Formats: sequence, structure tokens, C-alpha cells
Amino acid sequence: MPGEFDFIHWVRGQEKSSPLLLVPPGDDLAVLKWPADDLLLVGVDQVLDGVHFDSAVHTPRQIGRKAMNRNLSDCAAMACLPAAAVATVAAPTSTSLDYLKELYLGLRDAAHAFQCAVVGGDTAAWDGKLALTVTILGRSAGVEPITRGGAKLGHGIFVTGPLGGSILGRHLTFEPRVNLARELAKTGAISSMIDLSDGLSRDVRHLCEASGLAALIDGDRVPIHEDAHALFRQDRRSPLEHALHDGEDYELLFTGPVEKCAALGTQVGIMLVGRGVTLRSQGKAEPLRAGGWEHPLG
Amino acid sequence: MPGEFDFIHWVRGQEKSSPLLLVPPGDDLAVLKWPADDLLLVGVDQVLDGVHFDSAVHTPRQIGRKAMNRNLSDCAAMACLPAAAVATVAAPTSTSLDYLKELYLGLRDAAHAFQCAVVGGDTAAWDGKLALTVTILGRSAGVEPITRGGAKLGHGIFVTGPLGGSILGRHLTFEPRVNLARELAKTGAISSMIDLSDGLSRDVRHLCEASGLAALIDGDRVPIHEDAHALFRQDRRSPLEHALHDGEDYELLFTGPVEKCAALGTQVGIMLVGRGVTLRSQGKAEPLRAGGWEHPLG
Repeated sequence: MPGEFDFIHWVRGQEKSSPLLLVPPGDDLAVLKWPADDLLLVGVDQVLDGVHFDSAVHTPRQIGRKAMNRNLSDCAAMACLPAAAVATVAAPTSTSLDYLKELYLGLRDAAHAFQCAVVGGDTAAWDGKLALTVTILGRSAGVEPITRGGAKLGHGIFVTGPLGGSILGRHLTFEPRVNLARELAKTGAISSMIDLSDGLSRDVRHLCEASGLAALIDGDRVPIHEDAHALFRQDRRSPLEHALHDGEDYELLFTGPVEKCAALGTQVGIMLVGRGVTLRSQGKAEPLRAGGWEHPLG
Repeated sequence: MPGEFDFIHWVRGQEKSSPLLLVPPGDDLAVLKWPADDLLLVGVDQVLDGVHFDSAVHTPRQIGRKAMNRNLSDCAAMACLPAAAVATVAAPTSTSLDYLKELYLGLRDAAHAFQCAVVGGDTAAWDGKLALTVTILGRSAGVEPITRGGAKLGHGIFVTGPLGGSILGRHLTFEPRVNLARELAKTGAISSMIDLSDGLSRDVRHLCEASGLAALIDGDRVPIHEDAHALFRQDRRSPLEHALHDGEDYELLFTGPVEKCAALGTQVGIMLVGRGVTLRSQGKAEPLRAGGWEHPLG
């Protein structure tokens, strides 16, 4: 692996200037002039070799893109505009400069698609596996952030697209729903929102816990992606199981008054008093276990 | 390793509220109200097992502390106030919940020492080694950021403390010079600044490159830490060599008019026209190679 400083010099030449940026990458910290009227939203996420990608299979461009897009999807979940990002790469010592450049270009191109500047980063080599992190800074930019905690009793639960089977490729190629989220929030009809990264069965639970309510999911109305059907033909787990639990769909899950939201997404359930999530499907009701994608912990 | 969500629930109970924080950790992103008069400074840094610490030797409390303090030291380098941080932990699957808690408490206590809130994070287990990242958000809070690029011809080069031998322990126990940096910047005398993480020989080069100047370092005036003498007794490399190249001192290196700065630090050199860094020591002049701590790359 070439010197860290060669790579940093190259990176600095690749980045467009941002109107927010007073001191660009290359100093101890980047300096931004944050717009006075904008709330600042911040979060961080990591992608790890063998967990979120497989460096033996996926290209560095795909890996960088996914690392950035997961964070942009978090911006979508809050209905904010991505403004700036910083990233880290921990790379095996054998990593080539070209590979690092491809990782960076994957990160950068995904960010630039949403006018988001990459304003800093850190690269280090180690006797370990490839790990990337991205920290995202988002701007409210005239739209009040949508949290997980605003759902009300009787609000419908909606999704923005078909679910399941993302492991067949969509976990790498998805488009963060930033623009759609802004449109949804601007209607004023949305009461809570999250992006579907962990899987519907787990993410709806996050909305329930934050909002202090229970949920009923109507399995017969969950839109199922053709990838979930394709996976069923391989593993005989039902397409609905895949749609409920696979995760990494990066569609939006939101709640709001049914009459106001019916045209904004596909209704898959309703918020109820109590705790927990019930699945009703083909006339049968059962507890919906949170069997989605918990990054393989225990 | 226990479930990610158990740990997240525990973390949420540990964090003090921040006056800047409108939506606390636990949603897709944290929401902050950034003070309208404050510039926003942002940067990220990582600490990796086998590079920046040794998990077989160092405690998780020490590791977490170092990860945070390296970032607080970057705030010192820019003379800003740490305001908020987000962190990631990639942990081997065998990691216990208690170990994760200790890592977090190391991060948190270091941040809280400077009224900096930990407002988000991500924890994941993998079949890999321990890696932490911290992203820091700093506020200008009435003090113009000091960059690396403001040094002028004839300005003195100063350090805030003795250097060398940090590997004997100070790389873990150092105190970020945030308060000192603010005091220095408020004098109006400082023209450029950086924290000594890579080592004097490399960090002075960063000031030179950013300022478009050369430097002369007077080796006889470099304050040498007793740890550098202790290391000399082990490895017979001179104490000055250790002071110039070891790095991880986390003292400040700054420039400014000699007459105004003489009382603010120990002068170790002067900015000159041209490029490169000369070392003068015991009547002999030679090029000062950048032999400091480049995270072992190539």
C-alpha cells in the first residue's frame, strides 16, 4: 500500500468545492459555514468486509457507493438534505492505490448525486480487513425533520416500494430515497418515518417503540419484490418471509393519516394501542418476530 | 457478543443532554440546533488494533479514551470548542457487552471532559479486529479557526511541551490541548497551528506546505521529554531523534511573530522562504527528513 499522503493529495484534487465549505479538506478539520436557519442532522454508519459486503466478490466502487448510500438513506429517513460527509477507510496493508481510489470514487459519486460534499476523511493501513465508515451531515433546509416517534393511534403504515431479496444485488445498487422523502415530508401528512435497512419486521418495531404504540401488519398487502420470489425458488422460504425480514431494502417506512397518505405509498398496516407487532396474513394472526437483519450479533 | 440493540439501549441511558441537541441518539440521525454565529468544524479519525493500540495490552477504557482524545486534539489544532461527536465500533464477534461498555465509557468520559456530547454511533460485530472511529464537530464559538496555512516569513515556530517517547504511555494518557489552544488563539498572535500527532519532523512540513514556506528547526532548542531519554537508554537512538520523529505527542505546534509568541511556547525554529525543512543541531545543518509517524503505510 502506498503512502497515506500520496492518496490524500490525490483525493484533494477530486472534490468539488461546496458553498458551505470555508476551509477544505487538508487541514486538521474542515470548516463549514452552517446556514443559520438550518437544523444540523448527524449520524454515522459503517460497512465491514464479510458483513455488509464481500471484498472477494464486490468491486471497490460498489463498496464505496454502498457505504455512502446507507448514510444518504438515513438522511431520507429524516427528510433532510445531505450536505457534507466525512469517511474513513481501514484497508489491508496489501491494498493498492488504485483500489483506494475506486473506493473513494464510489463514495464521492454517490455523495455528489445529492450535492453532498466529501469534506474530510482518514485512511490507514492495518493487518486487518477492509472497513469503511461514513459520517453524514444533513440540513433541514426548510423541512422539519421526521422522527420515528410521531406516529399516532390509527395512523396507517406505508412503504414506498416492494421488499425482500435485496441480497441478490439491490443492497449494493439501491438509490437513496432522499428526494421522495422530501416530497413526502412537504405534504405535512407524514407523522413518523424510518428507512428499511433492518427489515420491515424490525424497523416497524422501531417506529412502535419510539411512538409508544403497537402495530398490525397486513401481510397480504406487503408489496413483494421479484427478488423475494427468486430467493424463494432457491431456499423455499416464502416471498413474504423475505419481504418482512431480509432488510437492506432502503425503501421508506412511514406513518400518517390514512386518508392523507393513501396516494403516497402502499399501506401495509395500522398503528394500535399497546406494544408489539402483530402480523395478519391469509386470515391468521400471529406475533411478528423481529427477524430482520440484525448485523450478525449473537 | 450480545445483541446490538441491548447495547444501544444501554448507551442511550448514559449520555447527558446537550443544549444543542433537539433529537437525541436513537433516531436515524441526531438533530442539532447549530448556533447561528458559530462556524462548524468537522473531521474524523480512526484507531485500529495493532496500529494505534494493542488490544492484548491496553484496556478498552484506554482505547476509547484515545479514540476520542485524538479528535479533541484536532479541535485544539484549529482552536475550536468540541461540541458533539459520533463514533463507530467494529468489534470481534467474541466481544462481551462489558467490554463494549468500557470502550464507550472511555469515549464518553474523554468527550464530557470538554462538554462534548456523544450524539450518535454505530456498533457492529465482525470476523475482524477491533476498530474505532470518531467524528468530531467543533464550534468556533467566538474564536476564528487557526489553519495550517497562515504562517508568514520570519515567524517563529513554537511547541507547547516536551516531545518524544510517547510510546511509553503518553500516546494513551495525553490531555488534548483544547483550552490552551483557545487561549493561544485569543491572543491574536498565532498565525498557523497543528497538533503534533505525526511527529515534529512531519507536522512542521504540513505547516510549510500549507503556508508556502520553508522552515529551519533548531534541534538544540527542541524540548525533549524524559520519555525520549528513557527510550534512548533502550534503543540508543538519540533523545532528539525521538523528539523529532516519534509523534503522538499531542502538543501544539504553532507559528507567529517571535516578539508576540515568546511567552506562549518554546521556540524551536523559524519560517523561511522556499520549500523543505532544515535541521540545525550542534553547529551542523542537514535536511530534516519527515521520519515521523506515518501510520505504517508502505
